[in-house]
Amino acid sequence: MGPGPITVDPRVLAAMSTQLVGQYDPVMTGWMNETMALYREVFRTDNRQTFLVDGTSRAGIEAALVSLVKPGQRVLVPVFGRFGHLLREIAERCGAEVHVREVPWGEVFTPEQIEDAVREVRPAVVAMVQGDTSTTMNQPLEGIGEVCHRHGALLYVDCTASIAGNTFEVDAWGVDAATAGLQKCLGGPSGSSPITLSPAAVAVIDGRRAIEAGLRPDPDADEDEADLPDRIRSNYFDLAMVMDYWSEKRLNHHTEAATMLYCARECARLLLEEGVDVAVERHRLHGAAMLAGVQALGLTVFGDVAHKMNNVVAVRIPEGIDGEAVRSILLHEWNIEIGTSFGPLAGKVWRIGTMGYNARRDAVLVTLAALESVLRQFGVAVEPGGGVTAAQEVYR
Amino acid sequence: MGPGPITVDPRVLAAMSTQLVGQYDPVMTGWMNETMALYREVFRTDNRQTFLVDGTSRAGIEAALVSLVKPGQRVLVPVFGRFGHLLREIAERCGAEVHVREVPWGEVFTPEQIEDAVREVRPAVVAMVQGDTSTTMNQPLEGIGEVCHRHGALLYVDCTASIAGNTFEVDAWGVDAATAGLQKCLGGPSGSSPITLSPAAVAVIDGRRAIEAGLRPDPDADEDEADLPDRIRSNYFDLAMVMDYWSEKRLNHHTEAATMLYCARECARLLLEEGVDVAVERHRLHGAAMLAGVQALGLTVFGDVAHKMNNVVAVRIPEGIDGEAVRSILLHEWNIEIGTSFGPLAGKVWRIGTMGYNARRDAVLVTLAALESVLRQFGVAVEPGGGVTAAQEVYR
Repeated sequence: MGPGPITVDPRVLAAMSTQLVGQYDPVMTGWMNETMALYREVFRTDNRQTFLVDGTSRAGIEAALVSLVKPGQRVLVPVFGRFGHLLREIAERCGAEVHVREVPWGEVFTPEQIEDAVREVRPAVVAMVQGDTSTTMNQPLEGIGEVCHRHGALLYVDCTASIAGNTFEVDAWGVDAATAGLQKCLGGPSGSSPITLSPAAVAVIDGRRAIEAGLRPDPDADEDEADLPDRIRSNYFDLAMVMDYWSEKRLNHHTEAATMLYCARECARLLLEEGVDVAVERHRLHGAAMLAGVQALGLTVFGDVAHKMNNVVAVRIPEGIDGEAVRSILLHEWNIEIGTSFGPLAGKVWRIGTMGYNARRDAVLVTLAALESVLRQFGVAVEPGGGVTAAQEVYR
Repeated sequence: MGPGPITVDPRVLAAMSTQLVGQYDPVMTGWMNETMALYREVFRTDNRQTFLVDGTSRAGIEAALVSLVKPGQRVLVPVFGRFGHLLREIAERCGAEVHVREVPWGEVFTPEQIEDAVREVRPAVVAMVQGDTSTTMNQPLEGIGEVCHRHGALLYVDCTASIAGNTFEVDAWGVDAATAGLQKCLGGPSGSSPITLSPAAVAVIDGRRAIEAGLRPDPDADEDEADLPDRIRSNYFDLAMVMDYWSEKRLNHHTEAATMLYCARECARLLLEEGVDVAVERHRLHGAAMLAGVQALGLTVFGDVAHKMNNVVAVRIPEGIDGEAVRSILLHEWNIEIGTSFGPLAGKVWRIGTMGYNARRDAVLVTLAALESVLRQFGVAVEPGGGVTAAQEVYR
């Protein structure tokens, strides 16, 4: 019941023990095409270029930024938590001139703040997270794409922590590039990063295209670096090459991590069978129950609750309580994991998730009952059954 | 029966459907430590820094090179096939000054050729593959580490295609950094790259260490890039950070791809239960049987057979035969996949693997029987039962 990774849906576990077929077997390439189609629905987009990056959600972020941003270009990063700092750091390592705007942890940006910053910085790319799990905040994004495009910028969004548990609309919101992970509301393990790219993003990446020497008929007929000043500074994350691999050309790049593809495909199938909107509503319901429950236990919620993600809540560790000791007893006696946070919030809050397979009534009730017991054990005055009762009222 | 990815060992498939535990659950961190210990034995090393990169084998290569090589440094790449060109390309993208030496596809380098090149180039890093699946050649590496060290260079080796099917000795051969993949002789799927780093390699990487802004108590107290001229140009592949994550510090970096870790762990357990030397001998035996079989079918083997990897053979497609049509019938009627190759060898050879779970007598015999049948169907004169008989003689 932490902020992710979470318990994997049993159907996803089963999918991962599927035997491999060859890299270009029609079964495999068929599943690759099917996975592209499934994730178009997950991302709510018509983008043809919707596929997987073989790595964790962080790999998806780096693939998007290193492929989109040329060294020396300006990137604007609105930061409202740990993962905003991560975007900034990755953009810096891509050689970008990074401009940061910040609001205090626990808050989000207004559209005006973002537009003012875009006007000042005139970035090539605006990079931001939707849900920053470090603070639990969910940044409103409606209209932000339009702001970016008006000022000639592309909008990149990391929706790892939020997608499938909170509304996320690539096409309606004008998002040019988005990357995700499976280990939050999608109910899978970490290790595959779904990505989608708008035609405008693809055009930028296509302009930086190169073909590997070992794949050219004459490897020594050099596509010289001198001719490629804008060459993408990574091979593994060169999305022009990855797009060729996922296209009908099937131009060899990495060897697709087939098991993680089976897994990503099953996560999307589960979500679309349920319906994206139904899944978001499920996360809203169980998140509301958990929120009511922890508040009824007398705990104070961190941050702007009106802008909290559905799928995670941060509660302040009560004064005088050893937060790590509480987490340890929950884990070792109750077999329930909850999280802490990073940087300025390390050891200050617990983060409790209700996401993916764990966005279930029984999981919420058991967690609240366990937390009440452990808090009492540590001398915190809690009303007997208060958390569970408050959650049950939400369900009624 | 292609050059990899291959059929996954059933025990590995089962391991991948193991439920997740939290990222810092003692079960998970215990398995991380156990995986480090297992891969020390796989790599034949005492290197403390032996762990997994979360991505395909190509991710491991890029992680090693981007972390070891500072922009502007000289890198020597001896190229004898497609994957040598890949090392060259990745090193170029890391900003290295890359010097290439080449021998024709189908041959390997003598130690003297390598020493001459090292003396001329004076590189910071020599980067080479052990087994280049594109040509099936297995580069002898004994003594190469000593040559590199005498000239002040580190030796990096990509042993993806060869490890566990051919002898590979990190410590005895003085290899400073090696990366692998699971999808060849280790009997797993693509998606995790075991890596090992010598103390000398670790010292280079430690000298480029930085801590992410979002993890520092005060994220705005900037570790300025100006202070970090040698900063690693990737966050995801920053092995200094990845080592911190795998160390007792457990400093958060990516979210470990737990399923792929379960899988990598099981691959190593299988190999060590069998014994590394026994597994190499198994690959030698079944590789020899396949080689004898294809030769008895009248096919010509590509390249220097004395330096062929145990686990794959490249045979020239007979004059006038449509190689892709043969592959298609083998796949669709016999459910057997064999490969072709890349670049100058595309469409010229078939590559037939005997590796990992597929290094078995029944797999060899069935493949030879099927190939004989399909060759006859295409009008090639083949002696009835010749391939199978020749393989059986090897087994006797």
